[in-house]
Amino acid sequence: MPALEVNPDLQKERNTATFDPQEFSIFWAGGVEKYKEKKALEKLFLEDPALMDKLPTSYMSHKELYEDSLRKACLIGEKIRKLRADGEDGVDTYAALLGGSLGAALLKEGNPMSLHYVMFVPTIMGQGTMEQQVEWLPKAWDCEIIGTYAQTELGHGTFLRGLETRADYDASTQEFVINTPTMTAYKWWPGGLGHTANYAVVVAQLYTKGEFRGLAPFIVQLRHMETHQPMPGIDIGDIGTKLSMKGVNNGYLGLKNVRVPLNHMLMKNQQVLPDGTYVAPKNSVLTYGTMMFVRCVLIRDTAHSLAKASTIATRYSAVRRQSPIDPKEPEPQIMDHTTQQLKVFPQISKAIVFKIAGDTIWNMYNVLSGELEQGNLERLPEMHALACCLKAICSADASAGVEICRLSCGGHGFMDCSNFPAIYGMTTAVCTYEGENTVMLLQTARYLVKVYGQALAGEKLVPTVAYINEAIKLKQFVNFDCTLESIVKAFQFVAANKTRVAYEQIEMRRRQGHSTEVAANLSGIFLTGAADLHGRAFLAQTAYTELTAISKQVSPALADVLKVVLELYLVDACLNRIGDFLRFIEFTDADVTKLEMRLESCLKRLRPNAVALVDSFDLHDRVLDSALGAYDGKVYDHIFESIKKNPLNKEPVNESFHKYLKPFMKAHL
Amino acid sequence: MPALEVNPDLQKERNTATFDPQEFSIFWAGGVEKYKEKKALEKLFLEDPALMDKLPTSYMSHKELYEDSLRKACLIGEKIRKLRADGEDGVDTYAALLGGSLGAALLKEGNPMSLHYVMFVPTIMGQGTMEQQVEWLPKAWDCEIIGTYAQTELGHGTFLRGLETRADYDASTQEFVINTPTMTAYKWWPGGLGHTANYAVVVAQLYTKGEFRGLAPFIVQLRHMETHQPMPGIDIGDIGTKLSMKGVNNGYLGLKNVRVPLNHMLMKNQQVLPDGTYVAPKNSVLTYGTMMFVRCVLIRDTAHSLAKASTIATRYSAVRRQSPIDPKEPEPQIMDHTTQQLKVFPQISKAIVFKIAGDTIWNMYNVLSGELEQGNLERLPEMHALACCLKAICSADASAGVEICRLSCGGHGFMDCSNFPAIYGMTTAVCTYEGENTVMLLQTARYLVKVYGQALAGEKLVPTVAYINEAIKLKQFVNFDCTLESIVKAFQFVAANKTRVAYEQIEMRRRQGHSTEVAANLSGIFLTGAADLHGRAFLAQTAYTELTAISKQVSPALADVLKVVLELYLVDACLNRIGDFLRFIEFTDADVTKLEMRLESCLKRLRPNAVALVDSFDLHDRVLDSALGAYDGKVYDHIFESIKKNPLNKEPVNESFHKYLKPFMKAHL
Repeated sequence: MPALEVNPDLQKERNTATFDPQEFSIFWAGGVEKYKEKKALEKLFLEDPALMDKLPTSYMSHKELYEDSLRKACLIGEKIRKLRADGEDGVDTYAALLGGSLGAALLKEGNPMSLHYVMFVPTIMGQGTMEQQVEWLPKAWDCEIIGTYAQTELGHGTFLRGLETRADYDASTQEFVINTPTMTAYKWWPGGLGHTANYAVVVAQLYTKGEFRGLAPFIVQLRHMETHQPMPGIDIGDIGTKLSMKGVNNGYLGLKNVRVPLNHMLMKNQQVLPDGTYVAPKNSVLTYGTMMFVRCVLIRDTAHSLAKASTIATRYSAVRRQSPIDPKEPEPQIMDHTTQQLKVFPQISKAIVFKIAGDTIWNMYNVLSGELEQGNLERLPEMHALACCLKAICSADASAGVEICRLSCGGHGFMDCSNFPAIYGMTTAVCTYEGENTVMLLQTARYLVKVYGQALAGEKLVPTVAYINEAIKLKQFVNFDCTLESIVKAFQFVAANKTRVAYEQIEMRRRQGHSTEVAANLSGIFLTGAADLHGRAFLAQTAYTELTAISKQVSPALADVLKVVLELYLVDACLNRIGDFLRFIEFTDADVTKLEMRLESCLKRLRPNAVALVDSFDLHDRVLDSALGAYDGKVYDHIFESIKKNPLNKEPVNESFHKYLKPFMKAHL
Repeated sequence: MPALEVNPDLQKERNTATFDPQEFSIFWAGGVEKYKEKKALEKLFLEDPALMDKLPTSYMSHKELYEDSLRKACLIGEKIRKLRADGEDGVDTYAALLGGSLGAALLKEGNPMSLHYVMFVPTIMGQGTMEQQVEWLPKAWDCEIIGTYAQTELGHGTFLRGLETRADYDASTQEFVINTPTMTAYKWWPGGLGHTANYAVVVAQLYTKGEFRGLAPFIVQLRHMETHQPMPGIDIGDIGTKLSMKGVNNGYLGLKNVRVPLNHMLMKNQQVLPDGTYVAPKNSVLTYGTMMFVRCVLIRDTAHSLAKASTIATRYSAVRRQSPIDPKEPEPQIMDHTTQQLKVFPQISKAIVFKIAGDTIWNMYNVLSGELEQGNLERLPEMHALACCLKAICSADASAGVEICRLSCGGHGFMDCSNFPAIYGMTTAVCTYEGENTVMLLQTARYLVKVYGQALAGEKLVPTVAYINEAIKLKQFVNFDCTLESIVKAFQFVAANKTRVAYEQIEMRRRQGHSTEVAANLSGIFLTGAADLHGRAFLAQTAYTELTAISKQVSPALADVLKVVLELYLVDACLNRIGDFLRFIEFTDADVTKLEMRLESCLKRLRPNAVALVDSFDLHDRVLDSALGAYDGKVYDHIFESIKKNPLNKEPVNESFHKYLKPFMKAHL
């Protein structure tokens, strides 16, 4: 590889950094082995010319974009087949590609086959009997069939009991008759459903012997194996363009008297016998496990989004020069403006903390998962409550953080060649899918209010809410001394008090004669506030515990930087919720000023290592895909390269001049 | 017109509203006359089949989108020519179309000719001599030439003295020689510059007799009048796709020894004589006036964005049913969930308050404008400071508000057919253009710190900052009693104290030996915070004063609703800055709880009139352009209509199946 020519301002930042970015890169990747794996996968996929875009997706029409996405998805699938033939574990590789940074780099607007791998195959594995798995999995693994997972409907999402699609068992033919009886019953949103998949797991309300039995999943063939034409009774297509993920081919599906044989209902948990007798499932806890798994993955994804956005903004801030601080001096790197640091650096610290929180809850999930399999459900509600609020907080903060980074790059952040618009689109989507954020917060809050009552009754609470016991004992938080430990403790005290207020609101409304449910609805402002603080207290505690522990295992140089990251994260988090702190803890105006000065001091101390820190996220240039954020910092060169790809610039005069503009200009002459 | 069939849930809302929406519509439009004008323009433009989209822009490639935008821009221009021939004032009509809701409805991704009307023509009017105006304006008004305004460069935006494009006067030929000497000197961003305009006003650093003279504007021909080919020395094209405004044809421009005659420099304010003698401008106050004018318009635009987004979200919230509050009851309208009200209703109140603030500052600007023309500059700094922070606050809050509305519609808000993605793109752009928001806040803050010093020295301050005098006298804010008046006063007290803290920070750093400029940079956190509160205090005061006054002029039924709007706005604004309130004013935990309960009470009281209130914004269905927000509330029907327009759905099997998917699925068999 030829020596890389780097923008001198950026090179200067690298030369003066006080730690070795690679040390943190290895930690970030999860150890030396994973770091090497990551590098190998990047080489294999990101440097394959067949998978490189000639035309940026933003210039394509929606139809072209879909066709190109499918082309690349097939190429990737074929590559993984070869890997598997060479003895590598293909599905794991594919999962890594889809979930991680590689997936977004290869298929920036999403993969029309991803639901096949992340929902269709796992659902058959989780909910199919052994016979069903033997029948369907080989075909699915080999991609002889491409499936998707159809649950959400046009009129129904969060509230599953509201789904309208129904499956009536006809014992005379031993078939289910599946229908979407109304417009709002149409399946809506499944990825790949539009024109890609030929099979789906369809979730429907099950009726046997004329009685309602609850939801059940059915394997339904959507399209002919050879012609790909929709099967009889199937009305299917693409739902149209979206804020992002335009290549995913999200689809709609209407079913009219579609008949599937008895053994197409996935029957591991519940059964229908040939005569229509229904055998109910033993417990439905397992699906909670799957939801938690997905939310843990999403928390990691939000960290990744922030890492990307803050890398781009930081490198650009080192290269861009603007507006003298001292009118006698030349224009400085914009990173020297305190207001610029205030935008970008907290996003770096959040990327790191969200990643660590993601790893922590991932480990907790794995422990829980083992317990669940042994029938031990004790920690499930606690973990569910935690995963819900963290999914909401991390996705909301990451989305806001990406936009702050974009705006920090001025007009250039608005150009698609910055990649910010695409990163935002992917990040903000997480606020809605896999549990809408407000619904998530309310689920957490319901748990908090419940355990608050238990704590009042003298019960000792489980670890992640034990701070509520302490706060009830403490009553008042004294001696807030601005140490990091004190901020963490204060976060917990504030969180406990937000839960107290929510609890009191519900109790008050119950005393006024409202049912618990109505009281909870009326207290929505208080409930979501409590859940928000619960998650933030966990993030503060985790950041403190984990970053302190990590600092002891790394070089003193890196440890020093991580200490600043931790301090910045905590001080910024505290100031962002300062209203809650002041509400429950004695603070003077001067204390707040001191905290704000401390924030500025953190920014100043992070300044010399900001570039090295984002370098250590080790994001491949194709992952960043940004003219503003490339490793070489040659921002303006890359922007110039981008305009050469613009199809409008292929001709000096666009035909619309002759067709529209010239006649208009001359019309009145 | 046939009776409109309306979704019954939405109709029920309209039937039970307690006021007449049209009464507020007329106020909103600016009186009966303007209301009628608006309706007439809408009929003329929005109901013209030639200007309706067959294919939604989101399905087009960037190139197709540009060509279609230019087609429509020419049609609109032609229509206005006809109006003018019929005795209507065409340019005013065009300006109304561009600035208001009509423009966005007709050209959703922006108009490639807008800079011709809003910058090229006005610049010649404002900066050209009488001779120059006589020469250029008729051609420009008749669209024989299409111009743009080229100031910002690839490497330079905010800091005008940093611009690199230079114009050297050559007295031997009486010409200027214009060059963009580096890559970063390329003009970047001007609308229509890419392939549309054939002329531009180019801003360059002027050199005559070898000496630097400052910035000057030059009329430069970009393209051949007949062939539209770029003129010699002109390197020109489109800068590429963006987060929004993809039809605007923002361009880049390099100039290499481009010669323009002496009389192509606009010389109303400064002159170059034939021998190269430079005559400096008398004062540069006039350009301040233009910037203020634009920012006043932008404040109104942000109100309009919020009106659109909150209309869509409110109607959808009335139609969509989801998640029972009481498990025994059916799924309610989601508008009955308190958390949904908490998202959407504050955006309605902000739309109204921003609109009123926009009108107020518009009136102040008109007074100022008259004063400026008479050489009275007294109120300029005050007004400049106010316009800057309001532009920043309103654009930031409106952008956030649009996203809250989008997210409140769940997955459906993510679809382009909701129109939220486009509304967000247009709204967030305002955060960056015409003065980047942080730069705006710092300009306001500089003024605040200055007048704070004057107030400390005993000076009586001008009206919009007079609250600082009071706060210094008052020292402590006592008897905060939660009345609306008290919230307004408290906002001012808090704002004054934020300015005090910023002032003290700068003074402290100066005492530590920093220059004022460096001290200001280090105090960025404090300065932007002070400017933010200054703007919010103005908004609170204006909302209170104006809405109270309006309430006295309207029917009691409407007055009652506006009182709730005002209360909701103020309580929400206060809770959003509760940290600042608690910092400077004595408040107990119970006081905050009371405010939060009051917020909930405002939401509950607004609930019955929410639909009528957004109806009264009177936004044409084409302006909303949203399947979720149409007046008839037939959300699901409109979504179904939208999928029929999707080009992917024209064929049951996409050709990519045969090209890529089938070979992949069968490859290993």
